[in-house]
Amino acid sequence: MSILEKIKGPDDLKKIDLDNFDLLSKEIREFLIETAAKTGGHLAPSLGVVELTLALHYVFTSGKDKIIWDVGHQAYVHKILTGRKEAFGSLRQYQGISGFPKREESIHDVFDTGHSSTSISAALGYTLARNVLQEDFDVIAVIGDGALTGGQAFEGLNHAGHQGVDMLVVLNDNEMSIAQNVGAMSSYLSRLRSDPFYTKRKKDIELLLRRIPSIGPNVVKAVERVKDSMKYLLVPGMLFEELGFTYLGPIDGHNIRDLVQVLNKTKEMKGPVLLHVLTKKGKGYPPAEKRPEIFHGVGSFDANTGEVAKSSGPPKYTKVFSDALVELAERDNRIVAVTAAMPDGTGLHAFSEKFPHRFYDVGIAEQNAVTVSAAMALKGLRPVVAIYSTFLQRAYDQVIVDVCLQDAPVVFALDRAGLVGEDGPTHHGSFDLSYLRCIPGISVMAPKDEEELRHMLFTALQYKGPVALRYPRGCGVGAEITTEYRSLPWGKGEILAAGSDLAIAAVGSMVYPALAVKEILEETGLSVSVVNARFVKPLDEQLILEAAKNHQYFVTMEENVLAGGFGSSVLELLAREGQSGAKVFNIGLPDKFVTHGSTGVLKKELGLTPEKMADKIISHFSLKALKHKKVILSFRR
Amino acid sequence: MSILEKIKGPDDLKKIDLDNFDLLSKEIREFLIETAAKTGGHLAPSLGVVELTLALHYVFTSGKDKIIWDVGHQAYVHKILTGRKEAFGSLRQYQGISGFPKREESIHDVFDTGHSSTSISAALGYTLARNVLQEDFDVIAVIGDGALTGGQAFEGLNHAGHQGVDMLVVLNDNEMSIAQNVGAMSSYLSRLRSDPFYTKRKKDIELLLRRIPSIGPNVVKAVERVKDSMKYLLVPGMLFEELGFTYLGPIDGHNIRDLVQVLNKTKEMKGPVLLHVLTKKGKGYPPAEKRPEIFHGVGSFDANTGEVAKSSGPPKYTKVFSDALVELAERDNRIVAVTAAMPDGTGLHAFSEKFPHRFYDVGIAEQNAVTVSAAMALKGLRPVVAIYSTFLQRAYDQVIVDVCLQDAPVVFALDRAGLVGEDGPTHHGSFDLSYLRCIPGISVMAPKDEEELRHMLFTALQYKGPVALRYPRGCGVGAEITTEYRSLPWGKGEILAAGSDLAIAAVGSMVYPALAVKEILEETGLSVSVVNARFVKPLDEQLILEAAKNHQYFVTMEENVLAGGFGSSVLELLAREGQSGAKVFNIGLPDKFVTHGSTGVLKKELGLTPEKMADKIISHFSLKALKHKKVILSFRR
Repeated sequence: MSILEKIKGPDDLKKIDLDNFDLLSKEIREFLIETAAKTGGHLAPSLGVVELTLALHYVFTSGKDKIIWDVGHQAYVHKILTGRKEAFGSLRQYQGISGFPKREESIHDVFDTGHSSTSISAALGYTLARNVLQEDFDVIAVIGDGALTGGQAFEGLNHAGHQGVDMLVVLNDNEMSIAQNVGAMSSYLSRLRSDPFYTKRKKDIELLLRRIPSIGPNVVKAVERVKDSMKYLLVPGMLFEELGFTYLGPIDGHNIRDLVQVLNKTKEMKGPVLLHVLTKKGKGYPPAEKRPEIFHGVGSFDANTGEVAKSSGPPKYTKVFSDALVELAERDNRIVAVTAAMPDGTGLHAFSEKFPHRFYDVGIAEQNAVTVSAAMALKGLRPVVAIYSTFLQRAYDQVIVDVCLQDAPVVFALDRAGLVGEDGPTHHGSFDLSYLRCIPGISVMAPKDEEELRHMLFTALQYKGPVALRYPRGCGVGAEITTEYRSLPWGKGEILAAGSDLAIAAVGSMVYPALAVKEILEETGLSVSVVNARFVKPLDEQLILEAAKNHQYFVTMEENVLAGGFGSSVLELLAREGQSGAKVFNIGLPDKFVTHGSTGVLKKELGLTPEKMADKIISHFSLKALKHKKVILSFRR
Repeated sequence: MSILEKIKGPDDLKKIDLDNFDLLSKEIREFLIETAAKTGGHLAPSLGVVELTLALHYVFTSGKDKIIWDVGHQAYVHKILTGRKEAFGSLRQYQGISGFPKREESIHDVFDTGHSSTSISAALGYTLARNVLQEDFDVIAVIGDGALTGGQAFEGLNHAGHQGVDMLVVLNDNEMSIAQNVGAMSSYLSRLRSDPFYTKRKKDIELLLRRIPSIGPNVVKAVERVKDSMKYLLVPGMLFEELGFTYLGPIDGHNIRDLVQVLNKTKEMKGPVLLHVLTKKGKGYPPAEKRPEIFHGVGSFDANTGEVAKSSGPPKYTKVFSDALVELAERDNRIVAVTAAMPDGTGLHAFSEKFPHRFYDVGIAEQNAVTVSAAMALKGLRPVVAIYSTFLQRAYDQVIVDVCLQDAPVVFALDRAGLVGEDGPTHHGSFDLSYLRCIPGISVMAPKDEEELRHMLFTALQYKGPVALRYPRGCGVGAEITTEYRSLPWGKGEILAAGSDLAIAAVGSMVYPALAVKEILEETGLSVSVVNARFVKPLDEQLILEAAKNHQYFVTMEENVLAGGFGSSVLELLAREGQSGAKVFNIGLPDKFVTHGSTGVLKKELGLTPEKMADKIISHFSLKALKHKKVILSFRR
């Protein structure tokens, strides 16, 4: 029986001799690799924190003590140790265990994460609550160096330092976020890594002395302070110290004994403590150590070779966007590209290689990405900010105030709009049509297929105002990719099929399903029109009004929540125009958070397959419309 | 002729002898005080930067060079010096000059601001664009120490430090944001203030030495580094230096010659520079120096005495909220309150005095405020986060992921929802109903008057889930304030008037105007029902459906954009239920950014006075509904 098999919960861990922890680490890694090879998942982050997770659960008492995992990619080991090993084969699958911490899954998951840089705030919240309630437990945030580049992490440090409360922040420094880390903070950390007693070297002392006389007090006074300055020498991590934290480290994150010793020490310390731990992303699995960005989040792969299963089928939307942007940037040197730490995920990597001086990776800092882009646009460049739909929520205010209010021609390339599948509720791009549509001055487009994405990108880059372009995760529909770029008529949809009884206006990923629904409905004798809306804003009002006038029934379809989405905009238009012709039925995502699982399964569950949508339409109008049966009969040919 | 009168633009400033600048400063202050006494405005911030603004315009060439004012409160002097002195009497008035930098107003305003902490990102965007376009100009961000607590400021510093580009950040340190500053960063700055050669004192060296052996390399190695550590002694502002900036300062922000000398120096320096300038908020006007939080943003006042004009009329919503929260917190010690640097504006000041250990001012850090509150709620407290509607946009992702996805019972007290008047487009709370309503699991309420606000707060604090409570800026309607707290039926509206032809469902600030509209319409013979919706989510579906069934015409009214707002939710409901009875007309804010001006004037311009709304309703239905005339006739009694 392996050691791992004996561990049914964190209590069991405490009974194991520390000498056996290295063996246990090995077993955990083997289990992780074996499972992830089948299920896919965030393997590399979790491989990097095996020893850290063991040490945390050995020293602290999860359940009573609160361990909060930033983002949560790295929480697999935590899940395995807290009673979820048996279920681990269902990782990220529908009704299986989540790829992120989930309160509903276990008492050991105290804060749901998924988006970056929230853990310090969350830990602080628990700590402040503990103090108000006069309870006694420890609170630990585990945050990566990547997540530390997000502004909220700084806000949390600043506030925790101010409060001076007892809490621990473990900085899991693997020199990566998802891609290679960027930013001054990252350079700072790597200086700390390379030398625990790092002191600033880039400026030489003479330069400083020269600078002093004109602006600072005199040098004599300075020399008097030599003794005090000794402290700097002994305290690395001044940046954190200045923010009110006691900095410890850096220490080896793969040495269990060191980790246990230092973590025990932190329990006795007063005030906020930051423990800097050095880990290797992908540790113990050579393919992941070599290519951590590939194994950050991975599909199924061959556990022996590390060969990642090739996805078959048409090119992904991301790839088509990537190629198109490079081609368009060759023609227009005003085009620049901005990513928030996701050059690979967003497809900007190719652009960055081709145009390194027109490419900006700002770190996990969506707010900065958007405002920087606004200013670049106002100065005459054409920035394309590629951010996943769900992460743009982080920069909502900047989209409104910095981009739209100033009418800055920024193009938002919103990948992963709609359901994303296995990453689940934190990652589904369910809201962008609603939260963007209410902003004055923005235009919102969604292509029906990967070829149309190319033309939309081209069209958006011609337009003199802010444009959001949303497209789904995964493969295109297999449309032929041309070499031309066409300017699509602004604010106009296209009629894909002309019928007479029922019109479907669909947006983006719902356009082809709408055509499939048409086929099904036409078997019942209905004559169906299908409109590809293309624009959610500005809406093709003429087209919508005519469709509503000329059909008895009108259906809208979108992969966005119904509240405030595309269908809602159609209803607003019809009300405004006093148009009372067609009965309208809106199809989209429900008013609830959608769980994880393959998009295929999720769509079935949500009734968003063509078959289920056709059923819904028939059922909706037959149940609700008074004379439905007669109408259906009269439709039959 | 005064010196000020000679300055028609920044070029004129450069012709003036530096010796005359102190006199000029005095003239500017007199002008500012005299004008603001009449118009109201952000006086104290601007009084603090008179010399800094003069020095910036003396050293740099605005127009070519880009000066970006964070938030923009402090840009009055800049406006006066850049050709807008004559227009200054129209400050913040409808069609007058804006209280914030506005690109449309002058070429000297290069980035519109209003919300905090964006200036470093904006300056960086201009700088990066300059480098891509190979142009030659200087870029300067002027940011207060308050704004520096916002996460985006850190994101900007981190990115600028990484890029290593030539740009200047002027840190205008007056130890205040709007209220007294908080946060570890603020303490750090005050240490720098008190001692330019600040070195860390709170930890004594023995303690450090004791810590070293167990976790760090040995002390011998440390001692070898003494020489390097000299640098720390000479470089204050290490925190900024570690982020890749060259730190200069702190220098006296009221000494023109020093400012000019140092600013000139920065022009020759390579890479990003942070200049730390010490100023006094309200400088030169004793009433403002004494009470900078009052004169931060002020209405009209007596220039001689500094006596602020008392607002007459009913108590403000803020005050009623403030009193109610204190009363409710006396009964329930789980209630805690959180503000993002606005204890006065949000009315939490009273709470903070009464319950200092249950009150948290997190700095200008809305993201942190929301996530901290989520965690506190999950641990069993009842946090009330008081944030202006428009500033909650800053924490949109946290509202979705940290609060709603986890169903954390956080109460959002959204003051300044709807039009706010003189502060203009960055400050109108125009979008919250739309951007909140699309989030699953949140409840959204709006009281018809200040008394109902009390009951709603009480009701929200009983509810086991996230609730947003939005209410307008300014005075209540004069409703009687009781001493009781009533639990309002969840998700239920109330019928205020029962008619038969036309129903109005209004939300929040629009309920009393709806009653006024009823009076006007009834003069034409229409019988009008009025519903106070109370809840935008969950909608009182039964009430809405019945109203729609029993009236030929249905009007919705809200002080929110129509796209995705309350009216939209009514349309969605009616479509979903196949309800085709009433013709619906939605009234609300238009799909455009609304300018500044008094709310009275703005409402008139937007057609949101009772008279204009009544006209709109008549016009909408008579023009659009085919048989309107006949209908109207049949209504007449």
